[in-house]
Amino acid sequence: MERLECPLCSRVFPHDPFFPFCPRCLEPGLVHYEAQAGPRRFRSEPCPPLERFREFLPLDEGKADLSLGEGDTPLLRLAGIGAELKLGSVYAKNEAQNPTGSFKDRGTAVVVRKARAMGFERLGTVSTGNMAASTAAYGSRAGFDTSVLLKEGTPASSLRLIASFRPRLLAVTGDYASLYRASFELGRKHGIYFANSTDPFRIEGYKCTGFETFLQLGGRPPDFLIVPVSSGGHFLGLVRAFEDLLLEGLAAAFPVFVGVQASGCSPLVQAFNENLSRYERLDRADTIAHAISNPAPPAGNSVLLKIREHRGLMVSVSDDEMVRARSLLAGTEGLLCQLESASAAAALAKLAASGLISKDHVVVLVITGSGLKLDHHEQADGPDVTTTDLEGLGRALE
Amino acid sequence: MERLECPLCSRVFPHDPFFPFCPRCLEPGLVHYEAQAGPRRFRSEPCPPLERFREFLPLDEGKADLSLGEGDTPLLRLAGIGAELKLGSVYAKNEAQNPTGSFKDRGTAVVVRKARAMGFERLGTVSTGNMAASTAAYGSRAGFDTSVLLKEGTPASSLRLIASFRPRLLAVTGDYASLYRASFELGRKHGIYFANSTDPFRIEGYKCTGFETFLQLGGRPPDFLIVPVSSGGHFLGLVRAFEDLLLEGLAAAFPVFVGVQASGCSPLVQAFNENLSRYERLDRADTIAHAISNPAPPAGNSVLLKIREHRGLMVSVSDDEMVRARSLLAGTEGLLCQLESASAAAALAKLAASGLISKDHVVVLVITGSGLKLDHHEQADGPDVTTTDLEGLGRALE
Repeated sequence: MERLECPLCSRVFPHDPFFPFCPRCLEPGLVHYEAQAGPRRFRSEPCPPLERFREFLPLDEGKADLSLGEGDTPLLRLAGIGAELKLGSVYAKNEAQNPTGSFKDRGTAVVVRKARAMGFERLGTVSTGNMAASTAAYGSRAGFDTSVLLKEGTPASSLRLIASFRPRLLAVTGDYASLYRASFELGRKHGIYFANSTDPFRIEGYKCTGFETFLQLGGRPPDFLIVPVSSGGHFLGLVRAFEDLLLEGLAAAFPVFVGVQASGCSPLVQAFNENLSRYERLDRADTIAHAISNPAPPAGNSVLLKIREHRGLMVSVSDDEMVRARSLLAGTEGLLCQLESASAAAALAKLAASGLISKDHVVVLVITGSGLKLDHHEQADGPDVTTTDLEGLGRALE
Repeated sequence: MERLECPLCSRVFPHDPFFPFCPRCLEPGLVHYEAQAGPRRFRSEPCPPLERFREFLPLDEGKADLSLGEGDTPLLRLAGIGAELKLGSVYAKNEAQNPTGSFKDRGTAVVVRKARAMGFERLGTVSTGNMAASTAAYGSRAGFDTSVLLKEGTPASSLRLIASFRPRLLAVTGDYASLYRASFELGRKHGIYFANSTDPFRIEGYKCTGFETFLQLGGRPPDFLIVPVSSGGHFLGLVRAFEDLLLEGLAAAFPVFVGVQASGCSPLVQAFNENLSRYERLDRADTIAHAISNPAPPAGNSVLLKIREHRGLMVSVSDDEMVRARSLLAGTEGLLCQLESASAAAALAKLAASGLISKDHVVVLVITGSGLKLDHHEQADGPDVTTTDLEGLGRALE
């Protein structure tokens, strides 16, 4: 059995899939690695990311056939945005190009292998968005009986996408936030592995994004790594990648991590600004950026700790700033992301304006999810279309 | 200046971007390569596909910064579908994982580099679907003034997606099919490079998918390669990849190409069945598979020639068969494609039932486009959702 460690109190404890939390702090546990006999290294021959980074992952058994081809996502130079902000080296790590269109696939790919190895036949998740689609897709590929606990009133467009993978769809009325913890008890009762946002194996999978970025930059970490923060799971996975690189002597420096939240729901930014080690749970969220609208991020205190430890930053951006940044990414760079992912570009604009990020810095924006999913589109205005007949077309093209 | 060759009469002629057709046959011209000094080979060190396959592509100048990270798509083993059809080795080459969610990106990536090198500042395309989104995205990244000629009445969901990249959107009333050729004259007048479905450089880009498949199978071609056919451009590009492999002695065999059309619009299947070398243009299309609903495929006669030359097949499948195949791919393999792409899986089921494809064959389905774009979803029935409160959830999970 795997062991977990508490990011807050460092306690090490056995992994209980039905209670993957520190028994003392109740913080989500992270995978604990025993001291290695020798240094850990990447495989150098061409192979999928989960094989390439295997020595850094909790994977013993090879089940590559459960993969949907996650990872190996592009690191794109954003020359247009760099020029606009008077910066030198701005890149996007485009996690939207994963099989179901988001970073979640990186984690789900590890979870299904672990849950399968533990003998589970049922898989579950609490999500109405990217994690639901990802878990349902990998669940169907791996032959799990998969249950998705949805929020009541989830839009039909999201439902249709998730339903394509034929999971059980359960819309739960009442306090949806309480399901995050309540689901584990249901899992115990019904033999379901609930792969929620802070699942320890999910978080390990996110490390691959950090490793790839490091390699794509020619074996160096960026100076700044900017990433939207919701539950905190993705953020922690990325931090752990660069911690591993430092530990193994593969990197000599650590990026400045910038966590981004929507100003209408930014409990971690508030705690960061007030220099608190614990965030205060909010009563409400007031933002259209639903995927990062989390009034009580389960791993939020761990994020705050890592930010302090590595001298990172937390920044909030408004809905308008995200909308503008999303439009800029698509219209200037041809990169269409979901609104929430554009928060990273919006934060970059702020930090460039303040002078904190300048021409000499190498900056990576982590693009967390795809804009191809139309449920992510602003439904407000229709686009501007000129209608003409063939005769009038020449005039229209002038 | 590049030279083109006519696939029908083999005539070689200079590339006129405003009339890329054989002056005699009026068939879309393909890139003509001069005899090489030595054998062409793939680059073996890790690099993006356009660099890896450069000796097989019409690329002299390096402009990797115009790339959006197209290619290097997964080849997924479809063990579940293989078992269901009693076949041994069925794979999906998932082109849906390209930057804008379709195979079109492979071609657009080459087009923008060529059009830029030729000095164009304006780019255009005639499409309301995947090609429009792809061309608009790459056009914006490369800094082109991009015009998309849409069909009148294009659904708002498609429009919004294309509009994200901020092209000029022109909805043209009247006979949309005639725009395919009319656009080139407009291009001449207004200095616009129209990158339509059979653009010769676009077709060269599609070769990369064939090369990757060959490498991912361990340096051998599949026995069968099944791909949906609309204009014929994608099909020709894939054929040319395996022709190159034969020519250079890298492969010893040629796959049986299976072109798939919707039975409600299958002019090439009809010509194939009647053993004709020219197809008859249809008056109408009666299928929900709009992306492959082409009553007069511009490169259709070239496709028929290649099918004859390489002993390929043309198969038609019904809308119902596509819907079922799409559901099977998502529900069994976790692979969500657009309806039209599922035609390849539907054709596989037919050929397996007929005994033509059997357990010993290695089969590759080319998955042409993503099911994440919600305009691709069947809008008919909402999915089956159980609604419950937290108390009732345990019962619902039983």
